[in-house]
Order: sequence, then structure tokens, then C-alpha cells
Amino acid sequence: MTIHWDERYARRARLMTGSAIRELLKLTEQPDFISLAGGLPAPESFPIAEVATAAQAILRERGTQALQYGATEGYRPLRELIARRMSGGGLTVAVENVLITSGSQQALDLLGKVFLDAGDRVLVESPTYLAALQAWNGYEATYLEAPMDGAGLDPDALGSHLRRVPKFIYCVPNFQNPTGVTLALDRRHRLVQLAAAHGVPIVEDDPYGALRFEGDPLPSLLALVGASDNGASGRDAGGVIHLSTFSKTLAPGLRVGWVVAPAEVIARLALAKQGTDLHTGTLDQCIVHELLAGGQIEAGLGAIVARYRERRDAMLAALTEHFPATARWTHPDGGMFVWVTLPPGADAVELLPAAIEQGVAFVPGAAFYPNGGGERTLRLNFSNASPERITEGIARLGAVLREY
Amino acid sequence: MTIHWDERYARRARLMTGSAIRELLKLTEQPDFISLAGGLPAPESFPIAEVATAAQAILRERGTQALQYGATEGYRPLRELIARRMSGGGLTVAVENVLITSGSQQALDLLGKVFLDAGDRVLVESPTYLAALQAWNGYEATYLEAPMDGAGLDPDALGSHLRRVPKFIYCVPNFQNPTGVTLALDRRHRLVQLAAAHGVPIVEDDPYGALRFEGDPLPSLLALVGASDNGASGRDAGGVIHLSTFSKTLAPGLRVGWVVAPAEVIARLALAKQGTDLHTGTLDQCIVHELLAGGQIEAGLGAIVARYRERRDAMLAALTEHFPATARWTHPDGGMFVWVTLPPGADAVELLPAAIEQGVAFVPGAAFYPNGGGERTLRLNFSNASPERITEGIARLGAVLREY
Repeated sequence: MTIHWDERYARRARLMTGSAIRELLKLTEQPDFISLAGGLPAPESFPIAEVATAAQAILRERGTQALQYGATEGYRPLRELIARRMSGGGLTVAVENVLITSGSQQALDLLGKVFLDAGDRVLVESPTYLAALQAWNGYEATYLEAPMDGAGLDPDALGSHLRRVPKFIYCVPNFQNPTGVTLALDRRHRLVQLAAAHGVPIVEDDPYGALRFEGDPLPSLLALVGASDNGASGRDAGGVIHLSTFSKTLAPGLRVGWVVAPAEVIARLALAKQGTDLHTGTLDQCIVHELLAGGQIEAGLGAIVARYRERRDAMLAALTEHFPATARWTHPDGGMFVWVTLPPGADAVELLPAAIEQGVAFVPGAAFYPNGGGERTLRLNFSNASPERITEGIARLGAVLREY
Repeated sequence: MTIHWDERYARRARLMTGSAIRELLKLTEQPDFISLAGGLPAPESFPIAEVATAAQAILRERGTQALQYGATEGYRPLRELIARRMSGGGLTVAVENVLITSGSQQALDLLGKVFLDAGDRVLVESPTYLAALQAWNGYEATYLEAPMDGAGLDPDALGSHLRRVPKFIYCVPNFQNPTGVTLALDRRHRLVQLAAAHGVPIVEDDPYGALRFEGDPLPSLLALVGASDNGASGRDAGGVIHLSTFSKTLAPGLRVGWVVAPAEVIARLALAKQGTDLHTGTLDQCIVHELLAGGQIEAGLGAIVARYRERRDAMLAALTEHFPATARWTHPDGGMFVWVTLPPGADAVELLPAAIEQGVAFVPGAAFYPNGGGERTLRLNFSNASPERITEGIARLGAVLREY
């Protein structure tokens, strides 16, 4: 008798399907190919020498600790440093409010594990981050969609959704993935008010906040809630679960992210993490701590921002030059993505094979809508390729669009 | 309106409870405390200098790759090397049969995610590895228990369990955690026969196989199935999903384990992993690859085995000297654990507070039984403490037992 694997898979496994982005990445490894599809940081920005120096110091000074099992909650000096750096302006973050995760992706998965039963509703921006959907599809979530414009989601359009008691609201307020749009300050205030009034927590995902090219930084939803009296308990940060990562400001290969949340939520997430991977890599956490404590991560930010700004500018200029006048696109103040709306009648999924044939790739926007739609949209990444390659890639795509 | 977190947790989250082991570890950090409760490798065995040299070479030669996002399936040269090293004796492992995981714990979680619906049965050894239960409790699994003796589980006692169609059989054949017992060769043959006859896959968890102190290595269940015609398809390894890790042979802080399974199972596990943490740390995988390819992991094994053998011998000698004649314990041929059965009427959970007061800790055996029982048993770890500390710890525990 042989094993029929398909019959053995769990219901959720049968629902899980591949990420369009990652499957695309596999197609686009030929040398002259220009992929604007991924979400990779610029490799030229990795502080390789600094990582090497930190690794040597750590292994020399506390090598046995860096190679041993560690606490599920994370390397305590790193948690303390994150708590200290995130506190301020009325917000107090204690070490008990911080969990280190294996990248932000793990935080999304742990949130699903702790909060989502099959059929539970999550209120997401529309469009929203693809890999969050992928994580929560594994828990059989359903989605309510909050329409967005150039100032982010509109809180005042959320009433009927909030009355349907979503388990949480998922929001990427800064330079959102996929649109590049930033949630306006007045809407931030209104969103945290409304969420508190309805007793619905907000999951604030902020991987890109440090990558601001222009304009003043806006307060996080966490800071707005923490600075008011909405907190569920004393020093905890009320109804906001805040996620971030070192993947964009240091290096994604280290897989170190973090969560800030009320201590009781952190304890639950840690319990779930224990059964999931025991803890995040110790050496990786020590390296991040060393470079955060030593100021090298902050020192590197200026160069990353300057590099990405130049690439965004190259992309926006090339779009103006090569795309039809009836197409529209966002003008992100930071981050890694531009969002394009194609001329009426166009379909990005149909366009993709021709684009790949011409040596350029993007992600069709439909992938970012949990309940369908977005056929006319696509996401372009500007962080990974050089300005010249971006210009060439957009020119290729413009030619494909004219043929289409 | 404040957030009432408890009401928001998913059903599975309400079922998840802390690992007794890890909670204990937190209690036992005073300097003179002797913890025989954990499962930590000997830190003296970590090849710190070799890791440092490897990290430098990697960051110098391919730093951008080591710090960038990577494929979900794992760093391809590492997958290839594992495939090559596990092939042989009639077993062919291809790169498509290998998934790199963030430690073996992640493999247990991914198996739950892919295979287990609420209420599904898993057939486990009794007692079994605590953290596997912890991972699968999160998917609301139920457990059938296979009684063990000094030669491991008895396949011929499994008939009625197998007829209840468990999703898989979970087995730690070498120096099992918690008992230290090794599954005898004739039982290995019989187990794979029976599992194939019933169409039930086996999850073979082998973190300790390389830590053999005496006797000849036995073929893995994977090798037995792969060498016969039970395979579900050509080059795939039939009904066995084999897990292992570099946590015991190199260092747990790097969080690198692997799964060998039929390609279609690997593809499903990779899909689940994608939503869980995107991929395992790239630098960590590169370090493991460098030390595996260079032979340093294998070169270090002799010293680890010699060290652990000495510690096991110290523990067994101390047990003979300090424990009552009516107690019994296993004599493991390898691994990290000895399993003690206390005199009739004793209860290890009751004993623990007195032991901790005397500065020594163990794990009560009841934690390893999913459906209750095991009150008279406890698990002792001999890999982490020095022989002198082990002897002292067992003496303290013997004194507590005499008082009891």
C-alpha cells in the first residue's frame, strides 16, 4: 500500500497556494532580465564589513552564548534596546512588550496562530500586503477590505466593516506594500479613535518607516494610542500590535524582526513561537544588537535613503517618459514600491507573459486583493535594480504596453 | 472601549500552554544551581573559531548573497550536500527531497500545518518528545500512544492504533527524547512494513543519531524504506518523512535543521514555510554549509561523543551510588538523556519543588505523556553539565529522594 499524500493534507494545506511573487522570482534569474517584481533591498547597501566585524567580536567575546539555545522571547539586550528606542513622546515600551521574531513574516504567522479561527474576519487595506494574506489564509481567515486613496485608507468608510467585529485591522501606514501610499496624520488619529471605540485591535506593520525620502515622519499608530488613554492597561500600548524588522535597514538574510504589543499579547505570541521554532537565531540577534547599539544601522540609513530616492526618481521619470498618458501611478515618499493603474481595459495578468518575454517582470496587482479585483493594477519595485536598469526596465514595459 | 484580549484569542491559542521545560529553565539560572532539566548541548563543544573563520570567508566572498533574501526551500548548495550525504545503500535523496528548516522544531510545526486538522490522530511513542506535542497541540491533534520497552516501541502492539488511521506515526528511533532508548533493528524492519501495509507515513525524528557512544549505527527508517520498494514514487523516499538538525552536531543557536521527504511533501512543506518565515537565515545556512563541506562538523563529532559518553557514565555511576535500589533507569547508547522510574508510590511532580530547593532540577516524566500518566518517571539531561556537576546534582537528587 502506498501513501496517497493528497488525501492526508489538512484542509488549510489544500487552501494554501504559492505566492505569485516568489514563483516569479524563480523565472527571472537570467542575467539580462530586469525584475521589478520582487521586494529585495539593494544588496549594495548591506554593511558587509560591519556585519563581519560584529560577528568576530561576538564570537570572540561571547561565542558560547551566541551559538547556544536562547530564550523564546529573544536576546534580552536586543529586546531592551528596542524597548528603549521605541519609547518616548508619551509612549513607554518595556522589555515585556517586545518579542523578537524570525523576520516580520513570522509575526504575521504568529498573529494568525494566536488570533484566527477558521472564518474569522480581518479588516485589511485594499490592496494589502500579499504575504500577510498568505500567512492568514493558512488559518482560513476571511477579509473585509478598506478602500484606499492617495492618503491611505479612509477611516470614515469603515463603519459597516467595524460593526462586523473583525479580529483585527491590518494596516501598513508608511509607504505601503504594494501601493507606496502613506496614511495621512488626520486619518491616523481617526483610525485609532474608531478602532478603540469598537474595541478592535490594530496590527500596524511598519517595515519601511525608516526609509523616508522626503517630508516629516508621522507618528506611528502605536505612538498615538500609547500617548492617549486608550491603553488596555498601564504601561502597555493599548490596542496596537506593532511589527517591524531589520530586513530593510540592515539585511533580510539575518531574519530578525520584532513585535511591540501589550505584555499579555507578547506572552501569547511567545508561547506560539515556542512551538514554532523555539527562538530566532542567536548569532543573528547578537549581530543585530551589536550594530544597533553601535549606531551602524542608523549610520547606514542615510545612504540607503539616498540610493532608494534616486531609484524612485528614475522610475517616476521613466514612467512619465515611456507609459501611456492614460496610465496613473503613485508617488511614494519612501519605501520600495510604486503602484501603477493601467489604461482602462488593460489586464496586468495578461500583460505579464509578454513582459517576461521582453525581459522585465512586475507583480500583477490582483494578487494583493483578497477577494478579487485590481486587474488594471501592478506593483513595481525600485529598491533592487540600479537607476539605469530601472529606466531600461520601464522602457521595455512601456513598449510592451504600446504593443498590447 | 478597551480590548479584551482573552476573548479575541483563537481556540488553539487558548489550548496552548507553556512548556514545562522552558519555564523550568527560567527558574534555574542561579550560579550554583545544577539543571539536569534542559536539553542544551555542551557549550565547550561549539567550534567557535571555525564558525568565526567560516563567517569571515562567507562575508568576504559572497557577503551580499549571505545577507539577502533566499529561497524558501533553503540554500541550494546546502540542500545538495545534504542530499548527497544522505544518499547511499539503496537510498537516493535528490535536492527536491530536501527542505531546510529553522531548526527541527520548525519541521514539527510545518508538519502540523500541512497534515493536521483539528481532532486528527497522531501515533506517538509513549513517552514522546514534549515539544512535538507542543507543536501539534497548536493544531488540535489527538494522540494514540505506542508503549515502549528497552528496545523502543513494539510494532506488533500497534495493530488497533493503525486501524484508527493516524495521520502519521512519530518516532525518535535513536537515543529517544525523553527515554534515551534506541529502536531495535528487527523492530525498525517491522515498523516500516506495518506502516506501509496500513498506508500510514512515518515521521522519523533523528536529532541524536550522530551522538552514538557505543555499538554499531542502525539503519534509519528512511534508509529501510528507501532501500525497499515501498516508495510512493520513483526516487522519492516512500512513506518516511525524516527530520534532522545541526543543533546537536554543530550549534543550536544557528537554527538550521532539515527534512527529507517525497518531493510532493517537500513542496507542500515549503509552501507552508513561505507563509511562516519566508526562509531560514541565509548567513546561518552558509555557515553550516561551509563547515559541513569542509569536514569540520564531522571532525568535531569525536570530541562531542567522547565528552557526552563521559558525562553519561558519570550520571549512571552517580545514580547507582545515590539512588534507592527500587528506582530504575535507562542506559542509553548515545544522545543526551537518561530516563528514571522512581520507586513505587513516588511522584516526580511532587518531588520537583524540594529538588529545586536543593539546587537541582529535572523534568517530571508526566510532561512527555500526551494523555496522562508517567507520574513515577523523570528525565535527566547529561550533555550540558560537567561530570563533577552531574555527580553532585545526582547526589543532591538522591538526598531529596531519601527525604521524600
